[in-house]
Amino acid sequence: MERLQLDFNNMMQGQIGPHGLTDGDLAAIAPRVLAAQRTFMEQRGQGMMGWTSLPYEQGAVVEEILAYAQDIRARGIRNFVVLGIGGSSLGPIAVHQALNHLHYNELPDEKRPGPRLYVEDNIDPERMRALMDIIDVRETVFNVISKSGNTSETTSQFLIIRHALKEALGQDYASHIVCTTSRDSGSLVKIARAEGFRLFAIPDGVGGRFSETCPVGLLPAAVCGIDIASLLAGAADMDKRCQQQDMHQNPAMMAAALSVLSMEKGMNISVMMPYADSLRYVADWYAQLWGESLGKLKDTRGNIVRAGQTPVKSLGVTDQHSQLQLYAEGPQDKVITFLAVGDYRTGMPIPKDGVGIESTDFLCGHSLEELIQAERKATAYALTRAGQMNMTITLPTLNAHTLGQLLYYFQVQTALTGFMLGVDPFDQPGVENSKNATYAMLGRAGYDDKRRELEQAPKAEEKYRI
Amino acid sequence: MERLQLDFNNMMQGQIGPHGLTDGDLAAIAPRVLAAQRTFMEQRGQGMMGWTSLPYEQGAVVEEILAYAQDIRARGIRNFVVLGIGGSSLGPIAVHQALNHLHYNELPDEKRPGPRLYVEDNIDPERMRALMDIIDVRETVFNVISKSGNTSETTSQFLIIRHALKEALGQDYASHIVCTTSRDSGSLVKIARAEGFRLFAIPDGVGGRFSETCPVGLLPAAVCGIDIASLLAGAADMDKRCQQQDMHQNPAMMAAALSVLSMEKGMNISVMMPYADSLRYVADWYAQLWGESLGKLKDTRGNIVRAGQTPVKSLGVTDQHSQLQLYAEGPQDKVITFLAVGDYRTGMPIPKDGVGIESTDFLCGHSLEELIQAERKATAYALTRAGQMNMTITLPTLNAHTLGQLLYYFQVQTALTGFMLGVDPFDQPGVENSKNATYAMLGRAGYDDKRRELEQAPKAEEKYRI
Repeated sequence: MERLQLDFNNMMQGQIGPHGLTDGDLAAIAPRVLAAQRTFMEQRGQGMMGWTSLPYEQGAVVEEILAYAQDIRARGIRNFVVLGIGGSSLGPIAVHQALNHLHYNELPDEKRPGPRLYVEDNIDPERMRALMDIIDVRETVFNVISKSGNTSETTSQFLIIRHALKEALGQDYASHIVCTTSRDSGSLVKIARAEGFRLFAIPDGVGGRFSETCPVGLLPAAVCGIDIASLLAGAADMDKRCQQQDMHQNPAMMAAALSVLSMEKGMNISVMMPYADSLRYVADWYAQLWGESLGKLKDTRGNIVRAGQTPVKSLGVTDQHSQLQLYAEGPQDKVITFLAVGDYRTGMPIPKDGVGIESTDFLCGHSLEELIQAERKATAYALTRAGQMNMTITLPTLNAHTLGQLLYYFQVQTALTGFMLGVDPFDQPGVENSKNATYAMLGRAGYDDKRRELEQAPKAEEKYRI
Repeated sequence: MERLQLDFNNMMQGQIGPHGLTDGDLAAIAPRVLAAQRTFMEQRGQGMMGWTSLPYEQGAVVEEILAYAQDIRARGIRNFVVLGIGGSSLGPIAVHQALNHLHYNELPDEKRPGPRLYVEDNIDPERMRALMDIIDVRETVFNVISKSGNTSETTSQFLIIRHALKEALGQDYASHIVCTTSRDSGSLVKIARAEGFRLFAIPDGVGGRFSETCPVGLLPAAVCGIDIASLLAGAADMDKRCQQQDMHQNPAMMAAALSVLSMEKGMNISVMMPYADSLRYVADWYAQLWGESLGKLKDTRGNIVRAGQTPVKSLGVTDQHSQLQLYAEGPQDKVITFLAVGDYRTGMPIPKDGVGIESTDFLCGHSLEELIQAERKATAYALTRAGQMNMTITLPTLNAHTLGQLLYYFQVQTALTGFMLGVDPFDQPGVENSKNATYAMLGRAGYDDKRRELEQAPKAEEKYRI
């Protein structure tokens, strides 16, 4: 079986010198990571840890999704548009980019295993207008995704689309909307029932950023022909590895230990650098998971801790020509995680016919896969010599199974790291103030107090504007 | 005239409390930023500051580029593909996204002002193969961009494309390649002359990350119908503002002062957060400019300083649902710069017909532009109340002129900040080791010493792999 591998040699003093970690550091933190792993084992499947059950309990859900996806294709639907944001969009985008053709939407219909896919995760009016310029709503199904059922951005998009569909299709509009939301709470489930939209449920114990392997992610993936059963099997395989109590056997435990050690040594930045265009949006998905789960003002006892490590998305080799200078020579304040693939899914030889100049022709007869692998190793080498912490996660090949392993691995690493830091990795209390201020500015009923607070805030001064 | 505005109220103690800056801080740093501005004035147009001349001295170049772009369209070319990386791709991508339709490549030919545009800034074999699946090289012009003329990634792509064009077109292949490179150095100019490719020159004093307003960026922009003269006029307008010696009148001086003050207070992260999909890749372009210019091991006197502030790309409102939790509650280690637009170029009303539920219907009758503006202000407000440093750059509207202002503003801010930190903002010595290690791994002649060095590096240990 093809399994994800974590190589953390370049976190250690033997490779990067005095700035690195030691076997003593690992031994010292072992009890803390073991305690976190025990919490993980005890709380599995409960509370906000329902995501640990997703690899095992979705046989019927998968059947239902596959049947619906088949139906979409049979109806001749040309576009499938996700309306969602954050936890409702980052997973679908990451999986789509990883497993579909890199110019999927630009392929002719007969070369695509499903409709074109668009994931609309912003409310920029120009973007919404641009989408309407290139799709015909009559040939389109819209997947409205919101765990809470009350996400303002998604609701706004939904209202616009519902209106456009009604104008174009009359009462048939309802067959062009499918909702993925909580079974019990929020407006969306009520609207869907009242108006007859197809519904898929997000389980209660699955928060947005842990939801890719529930219908949030499975439905758009299946519509595009991705093997969702294999994605779940990969997650299950990783879950088994993550149940081991020896940090030297359990990659998520080791990664959590390394993360906490690095944070305690002052590394407040975590760079995720895939060496594959297909994995570039896994870095975005990770950025939410890591940023929102660990970035907390208070620990679970109420102490002010201001925890968190800022995720940075990077892309190899592209960002070698943008960020490597900083990574190599700048402050020693970051950990760089390379995402490698063992074998790319296609080859691309560099022809043998050169131009007669050595600085060009030395590349002839090699291949892009040789070059990208050499550059990844050379970059890790250069950063290591520069004393910068880095590690490498390798997927032997990229497919639904190994991607399922990778996503689940990051989820467990994040949960364990949160437990070790003493914060709740499953809440996000810090976004409420901005939401409520938006409601107040829009004049929503019930937000008069917030409106008064805004009016009484210190006024901006003209001298601080240029 | 529509001018960029910088609002830095939320950097100051009056807004964010004790973590903020004071008028005393600004007064204390004024002499340093003035000295930097004097360096800028003295070195304008010389050495690696040739980019300050670009807004003024390119009348003939612009004419030549416009004529070439017209020729491309007249030939019925359907695709224009940039082969370039880093400073040769980030500018073209940013300007394309900012000023062209957000689904430009998916528009039918008759609705586009030029051919489809692809910017290929990676050597992933899967990506190259995917491109070949959707374009016909016989209908395509390839723009090979490399300042040095020796960039391995771009050279590899070039060799692959040259071979494919020769196979498809025989001797006509040369009319499908246009090179943008240094007039004097490197292989690319020699190849272009030997094989008869059209050539555009990158001036000597213009480094990659300062090159968007030379033919590197102007050519792809013009091919897509962008008003490049207006882009340059915007840069010229900003250049005039940046020649003022009063930091309270000169936004780049003030921004440099704020940057240095924030770094000295421990802010090692700079988040760039545009509230417009059109500006999202300006954040990527900025990330290179800021990261590569300031991330330096040594100052110009040779002292070890490990300067630099890590740029982070973010997108409003999207990343409110990913990163805001961390920004609001996490460590006070970052400065967040919002990029705002005063008026979006299209409206998108939210229909008045609701669903009969308050938590949905309160949005009815508003518009996406109202919502995105409210969310931006609410996010700035929430971060300010949380004591997190933030500032806002506003473009009254987004067009070629205001975009030209913005790009030039960042370039001057970066140069001034580099001067204040005592580093050379125009070099990138830290990328050589990785490049040379790549050459050694590929077996290039002349890199035997590096190969031996690689062989003698500490071996990775199996116990640090899981």
